[in-house]
Amino acid sequence: MIRSHEAGTLRREHAGQRVTLAGWVARRRDHGGVVFIDLRDASGSAQVVFREEDHAHDLRSEYCVKVTGEVRVRPEGNENPDLPTGAVEVVASEVEVLSEAAPLPFPIEGSTGVSEEARLKYRYLDIRRAQIANALKIRSQATYLANEVMKERGFVYVETPNLTRSTPEGARDFLVPVRLQPGNWYALPQSPQLFKQLLMVSGLERYYQLARCFRDEDLRADRQPEFTQIDIEMSFVDQDDVIELGEALIGRIWKETIGYDLPTPLPRITYAEAMARYGSDKPDLRFGVELVDLTEYFAETTFRVFQAPYVGAVVMPGGAGQTRKELDAWQEWAKSRGARGLAYVLVQEDGFGGPVAKNLSETEIAGLAKATGAQPGDAVFFAAGLPGPSRELLGAARLEIGRRCDLIDESQWSFLWVVDAPMFEPVVDEVGRETGWTAVHHPFTGPKPEWADNFQDNPGEALAYAYDMVCNGMEIGGGSIRIHRAEMQQRVFDVLGISKEEAESKFGFLLEAFKYGPPPHGGIAYGWDRVCMLLSGGESIRDVIAFPKTASGFDPLTGAPTPITTDQRKEAGVDAKPKSEAAPQA
Amino acid sequence: MIRSHEAGTLRREHAGQRVTLAGWVARRRDHGGVVFIDLRDASGSAQVVFREEDHAHDLRSEYCVKVTGEVRVRPEGNENPDLPTGAVEVVASEVEVLSEAAPLPFPIEGSTGVSEEARLKYRYLDIRRAQIANALKIRSQATYLANEVMKERGFVYVETPNLTRSTPEGARDFLVPVRLQPGNWYALPQSPQLFKQLLMVSGLERYYQLARCFRDEDLRADRQPEFTQIDIEMSFVDQDDVIELGEALIGRIWKETIGYDLPTPLPRITYAEAMARYGSDKPDLRFGVELVDLTEYFAETTFRVFQAPYVGAVVMPGGAGQTRKELDAWQEWAKSRGARGLAYVLVQEDGFGGPVAKNLSETEIAGLAKATGAQPGDAVFFAAGLPGPSRELLGAARLEIGRRCDLIDESQWSFLWVVDAPMFEPVVDEVGRETGWTAVHHPFTGPKPEWADNFQDNPGEALAYAYDMVCNGMEIGGGSIRIHRAEMQQRVFDVLGISKEEAESKFGFLLEAFKYGPPPHGGIAYGWDRVCMLLSGGESIRDVIAFPKTASGFDPLTGAPTPITTDQRKEAGVDAKPKSEAAPQA
Repeated sequence: MIRSHEAGTLRREHAGQRVTLAGWVARRRDHGGVVFIDLRDASGSAQVVFREEDHAHDLRSEYCVKVTGEVRVRPEGNENPDLPTGAVEVVASEVEVLSEAAPLPFPIEGSTGVSEEARLKYRYLDIRRAQIANALKIRSQATYLANEVMKERGFVYVETPNLTRSTPEGARDFLVPVRLQPGNWYALPQSPQLFKQLLMVSGLERYYQLARCFRDEDLRADRQPEFTQIDIEMSFVDQDDVIELGEALIGRIWKETIGYDLPTPLPRITYAEAMARYGSDKPDLRFGVELVDLTEYFAETTFRVFQAPYVGAVVMPGGAGQTRKELDAWQEWAKSRGARGLAYVLVQEDGFGGPVAKNLSETEIAGLAKATGAQPGDAVFFAAGLPGPSRELLGAARLEIGRRCDLIDESQWSFLWVVDAPMFEPVVDEVGRETGWTAVHHPFTGPKPEWADNFQDNPGEALAYAYDMVCNGMEIGGGSIRIHRAEMQQRVFDVLGISKEEAESKFGFLLEAFKYGPPPHGGIAYGWDRVCMLLSGGESIRDVIAFPKTASGFDPLTGAPTPITTDQRKEAGVDAKPKSEAAPQA
Repeated sequence: MIRSHEAGTLRREHAGQRVTLAGWVARRRDHGGVVFIDLRDASGSAQVVFREEDHAHDLRSEYCVKVTGEVRVRPEGNENPDLPTGAVEVVASEVEVLSEAAPLPFPIEGSTGVSEEARLKYRYLDIRRAQIANALKIRSQATYLANEVMKERGFVYVETPNLTRSTPEGARDFLVPVRLQPGNWYALPQSPQLFKQLLMVSGLERYYQLARCFRDEDLRADRQPEFTQIDIEMSFVDQDDVIELGEALIGRIWKETIGYDLPTPLPRITYAEAMARYGSDKPDLRFGVELVDLTEYFAETTFRVFQAPYVGAVVMPGGAGQTRKELDAWQEWAKSRGARGLAYVLVQEDGFGGPVAKNLSETEIAGLAKATGAQPGDAVFFAAGLPGPSRELLGAARLEIGRRCDLIDESQWSFLWVVDAPMFEPVVDEVGRETGWTAVHHPFTGPKPEWADNFQDNPGEALAYAYDMVCNGMEIGGGSIRIHRAEMQQRVFDVLGISKEEAESKFGFLLEAFKYGPPPHGGIAYGWDRVCMLLSGGESIRDVIAFPKTASGFDPLTGAPTPITTDQRKEAGVDAKPKSEAAPQA
């Protein structure tokens, strides 16, 4: 090692020792003949004192330097109690510039309004900032902890292929031309789903992997074309086994990185209850404000808008005091979500305001506060129509109320499981007709035991043996008990309208594998970027990815993606015709 | 859990307990009214006893079953001491078939001559075989151990992108069209080399990753288009620091998986010595048989073939007893390696035989046995010409001698470091002229300190600060101390004939990063597939990859790669023209 000590480890007991440090010039202060430099390395920083004539004038911001000198206790009154090394300083006797730094595109120390594009282009400088470096370190720590938990429980770490076969999983595959088989293409995996199920057929019983997944999806602020999941699959288990493991994993990580005791067993609520009470399948329980079902209440209403299969409401505490402009903004907000608007009533000390109030009968008005729990000064927002979209709108309004009214305690953690999701949801065509069914999770998700024999008779009611872990209103993990019987799988395909040929061409090799004694199995996958974002208090998954891309998939650092040359194109066989028109089948 | 116990854990102390097992029917023996079944699960297997009338006739090979029964000590004389559970058996009272198995394409139990293509097509059955399952478990164990070592030493696990920019590293990139930026392509990384160096610029100081790498190389038996390396980079270090870490890592893994004590510090030999003594930069030291340099010895020879810049020999113990056919086969062997043949002399009790002997002078013959160390009964093989190719031929002959004469003790381990490789090697054109220099490692490899200032004056002699770990004649890890000064990097580009424009377009973002105080740094990467193959005693890296591809990149299991549809092609933007002809530059 070039150095004898790490800067951040120096303490009072090192006083009198001669040490050699190596790191970066973080801060510099000149005081008449004496120069103080904060020397930063990965462990922290230490104050180094130079006499001005000792070449300290050469040391500029972010130079990489090696300094030898004697540790001394700082003069009385000069200690810095905020810094672990604040009791001491190093009096430099030798200094060597290991490399110089050009003027920086943005300062490393102190937070400034640097654009994200600039931060990503100079990501290596961005990571020198404590906040980003710490986020990456927490991610690393969480990864180590995950490995420990899985090791203790006897899981086999298996790496599955990244160059594989195109399979439909609800998003587009990234494709890779294959030079050695011109005209044929690999696909990058959207998840290791099929491989982990094959590993269960293989008898390994307990599989996990820190798996890279690739999905070619449309722009969204917080999506990346590649992301990481902790991917887990187990044989001979039931839902409770997977849930127990998931709690052990997340519990250990939260405990050992940030000292939070996960209160296990976590609450479980059903999908139906989550939708009814919070209008969301990933409710944020850090605040109350529940949806109120008013369908019964308005059963006899003469107000046409509320003559609907579902009428619900959510109360905004203090919302009656909003200005006209604020109330109008709610309408815009609702429209931006595809709703026609957001009906509301303002609860006042002396009656009810807002445009809806006059459409309601006296009885309806009279009981409304009691029915919704609204207090004078509150606003009541309504949604009416089909239960699904109406609840989703109210659920979104609930979150918006939480934010606008500052109801969310950011220091709290809200973990829960959402269970018993529907197996299927209707496919709706352009004119709103239901034309069939699609799988809510994926077509290998098993039914709950009580639906094992008859899900096909009532697809809209059938419940999946699936579970999502939700944290602070975000789904961080999800999984299911899978189907392992060919006969049951066939019934699912029948509901989904997948023909034998289509099933064969899409998942033929999995169906073939299931002919050879597949065990009952199930699993879960945690969205690792999201988990690490929550742990490190980041606002974006980009904060916990070392080299993220922008929303359009561009990497400002390397300039990827780029055009390719004609030679590259020719060599890769991009334009070659496959030898056989039929895809080879396993 | 569906079961109460794992089959392989049952012992005498479980006698009398009622247990539920779940697993696969491995072996079945019918004995007049009683049926014995070996029930296999991931933990091992246990014998289950059925009365024939208890539906045992339904249980066929590889059915997945759940069995409940009472553990009892086996009757005297029926114990199986080879099986951990051999003292007991389970008397079944209930059995449930969890899933049936179709007739198998090959038997799971017992090793048979199954083709590799069949094994890969039914890989999930192949993995049920103990040998493959154990190889995957050893790989997993090694991965856990690597994580532990790196954690103890404060390394930050950082995931680097798999969708990145095409950069030249001596092999072809796999390319990925980018739908959101039509006409532009990502490349899959050949290694995280550039990113790990950027992480050093970022100040993380200690990075590692279990990294997937992708190289579109031509067919070779033991190559995969994707492979894994344990990728490591450290700042402020010297060669000894990286070597010490590498020994700690490999030492812990070998000790804790197979109980082998790595004798550290490992021997280091220079590249020059390895080539001179063993004709290889990755010598297998499990046997002797060294090359003998006879250039001086034949300095005055009249034999035209030996009038060469280098003449060397290697002795084959007992080789004089080979048949004419065997000796001819050596010629074929040499020709298949691109040599013109392999000159030899047979050392006999009463003189020297073989076609070369008559071309040598009496003095040359008289001293040959002493000069080469050959004993009567041995053969001496010669190579003459340029030192490089001649030594390589003799080195290959040495390995072949080791195999044919059974000199290699397969139970031994031979670990060593090969250091001081050349920085550059000549580029030779079609007519054999040296037209320039190419980097032996990669262009970011630093020179040894004594060559720091003058490597450009004598590129053919300059030594790199590089080190390879060799095990049993295979390179399992390699790395170097990198260049961190722009001025030195420029001199390397000058030697390599890389223009400023070319350097900018290929590695512009790394060169830009190096303007901002890059620390001295270096690292190493271990070829994880090879490490795990050695650990598990496999013969091919395919034995330690869960789902490998054939040499042509085909996956018999999934059928990948496949043709893509016109729609996929259109949607992925394969044929789109990039908006700007110039590649965006970072």
